[in-house]
Amino acid sequence: MTVGEGRTEIKGGGVTTPRGFRAAGVSAGIKANGALDLALLVSDTPATAAAVFTINRAQAAPVVVSREHLSKSGGLARAVIVNSGCANACTGEAGMAVARAMADDAARLVGCPVEQVLVASTGVIGVALSIENIRGALPAAFRALGADQGAVAARAIMTTDPFPKEAAARAGQFSIGGMAKGSGMIEPMMATMLGFVTTDASISQPLLDRALRDVVNDTFNAITVDGECSTNDTVMLLANGASGARIGDDNYGAFVDALRSVCLELALGIVRGGEGATKLVTVTVTGAASVEDARRAAKAIANSPLVKTAIHGGDPNWGRLIAVAGRAGVAFELAAAAVTIGSTVLFKDGAPHDENAPRAAEYLKGKEIAVSVDLGAGGASSTVWTCDLSADYVRINADYRT
Amino acid sequence: MTVGEGRTEIKGGGVTTPRGFRAAGVSAGIKANGALDLALLVSDTPATAAAVFTINRAQAAPVVVSREHLSKSGGLARAVIVNSGCANACTGEAGMAVARAMADDAARLVGCPVEQVLVASTGVIGVALSIENIRGALPAAFRALGADQGAVAARAIMTTDPFPKEAAARAGQFSIGGMAKGSGMIEPMMATMLGFVTTDASISQPLLDRALRDVVNDTFNAITVDGECSTNDTVMLLANGASGARIGDDNYGAFVDALRSVCLELALGIVRGGEGATKLVTVTVTGAASVEDARRAAKAIANSPLVKTAIHGGDPNWGRLIAVAGRAGVAFELAAAAVTIGSTVLFKDGAPHDENAPRAAEYLKGKEIAVSVDLGAGGASSTVWTCDLSADYVRINADYRT
Repeated sequence: MTVGEGRTEIKGGGVTTPRGFRAAGVSAGIKANGALDLALLVSDTPATAAAVFTINRAQAAPVVVSREHLSKSGGLARAVIVNSGCANACTGEAGMAVARAMADDAARLVGCPVEQVLVASTGVIGVALSIENIRGALPAAFRALGADQGAVAARAIMTTDPFPKEAAARAGQFSIGGMAKGSGMIEPMMATMLGFVTTDASISQPLLDRALRDVVNDTFNAITVDGECSTNDTVMLLANGASGARIGDDNYGAFVDALRSVCLELALGIVRGGEGATKLVTVTVTGAASVEDARRAAKAIANSPLVKTAIHGGDPNWGRLIAVAGRAGVAFELAAAAVTIGSTVLFKDGAPHDENAPRAAEYLKGKEIAVSVDLGAGGASSTVWTCDLSADYVRINADYRT
Repeated sequence: MTVGEGRTEIKGGGVTTPRGFRAAGVSAGIKANGALDLALLVSDTPATAAAVFTINRAQAAPVVVSREHLSKSGGLARAVIVNSGCANACTGEAGMAVARAMADDAARLVGCPVEQVLVASTGVIGVALSIENIRGALPAAFRALGADQGAVAARAIMTTDPFPKEAAARAGQFSIGGMAKGSGMIEPMMATMLGFVTTDASISQPLLDRALRDVVNDTFNAITVDGECSTNDTVMLLANGASGARIGDDNYGAFVDALRSVCLELALGIVRGGEGATKLVTVTVTGAASVEDARRAAKAIANSPLVKTAIHGGDPNWGRLIAVAGRAGVAFELAAAAVTIGSTVLFKDGAPHDENAPRAAEYLKGKEIAVSVDLGAGGASSTVWTCDLSADYVRINADYRT
């Protein structure tokens, strides 16, 4: 198979599936329960790096530091250090010092310039992150680095995630792997979670950056759990060229295709593991006057508590879907609109089809739900993914710090 | 006391507190459980009328009909007919015919032109409303009309509301009274609920319209339960002049002041009775670059599931307040921002004050909670009201139709 031809999913793969990447996950004592909370990801050689960060104006210290490092290094990275259990956000100058110290310590161990270390944190906002915890555990993480430790690293970046998220794909000579964590504060305005994607393809920084931005919009930015956008959200993509496969104009499409498949699988994993989620919901809006309208309506539906509770309760309440489409601030023609749940039409051309409700109710008992709304206003469409809203979401978030 | 001087709340008052208004509430069998579901409000003489309606593009049939009638009558109304249990929304031509028939039947009984009857409905979307139910019960409602039946009418317009909402105030020679219903699908983009306000003041239609619009923005449009905007939301204001008090430029301020007090009490009642609500939350945003920014940030905070669940859980999680302010799309300076819960400062000038968290946690055990966020970006401010998000909200809405 030549470079970029075909694409196969690699079951059980993750950030260490591409050659030349090693990872580790250890417990640094940041989480009170002693769970894994520190991950290290290292490329054997300096990797080309691209990243997208939260658009939240309250940017966490690690976001500020990673931005700086990417800029100073000219888009090169040897290592990524990630902690869970503490977001190191809204922590002022002290928090900035800790984020810088994390990078310093990792750079010294790995043996690279500090600007080639990227930093990420996730957990409670506004709590001081102890550099002592990180410093104490980092040598063990460094010793534990292995090409078979991707799954451990994926566990170490979790907070309220019910399961780790990993994905990998091979396309010709190169492969792409990734890990991600959710699982609340997930909104698609940006890469609203932590995601780390590696590849052993060789690709210029501008092309890598373009690929990441091309893919993020339809994957990490097309999911939502609760419409919240965190202070720390970050997706990083590292390409170390260890496979020898070079990405250029001829095989860029194949690269983006593989990258999209990995990112989409991670993104859907985040939704499946959304706080309190019991169902994965695919929301498709068609008949929109523009793609922007379609996306806006789809997000409004995906974030609607009334829609999400109805789906949770197995209620084919198409009226709520219409009501949200109507208030989404987009072109909408009630007389030409339609609502479909699964393959069952419940509203069409301005008239209800409640005779189909029992079939839709049966369908809603499943774990993977598709709903679609036709706005009756044009030819554009968009798809986003979300989860249902359960009483467990409330319990998890009412008790998060207690 | 002269016209417009002073203002006193009238405890237990409602739509029939102003002279010349009679109301009734009966059971028409629209609600399966036989509860009150049809209200009639009649003014002895044609009243000047103003209304604001939902901005949802999927407008329910009664909204369309009431708009038409207000326009045709030149802003005069003798009667309002309201049913609960069925929204008569997304019901196509058949639904329009039912809304028109409701008005016809009421007009015949009351003895007025049909365009002087306004119509409102609330309940499940997309279910056909039976004119037979209405027609069967309307004569009884007409017979039951009384100046002491405002409280019954207020019960008849309820859906999931845990209690009826009424308010009244007297200012000099005139009085203002009102009733409202919530209690989900409450978002401040418009008068997102049903509200009916009466006054025995005499006021020109343009001035009445201006007064309603002046007041709605800081009352009914400043509340939110779940960020949803319904297909049926309506606030109507009827002025019949029965008190003899004339409102002009000299006492317009006193009129608006009394109107605002009634509308705010009704609006806060809606929030207190929000689906699953256990706390009334006042969200104030200060330090904004503009009033629009302040309102936008306040609404984002008030609609944030993470903020609402934290308050529900009694967690002084100021980080979530900062995070929402940061993603609200408004000017925001983290280093100059502040978060106050009750009177307790938890974040100021870029630094946490977690030493104050125990005091804030104690305060959060109360039923009336105030939180404020300073954006650190200017001098404008805005206040909105919301409720907490509980597991009961999910239960109510997952099971609404079952």
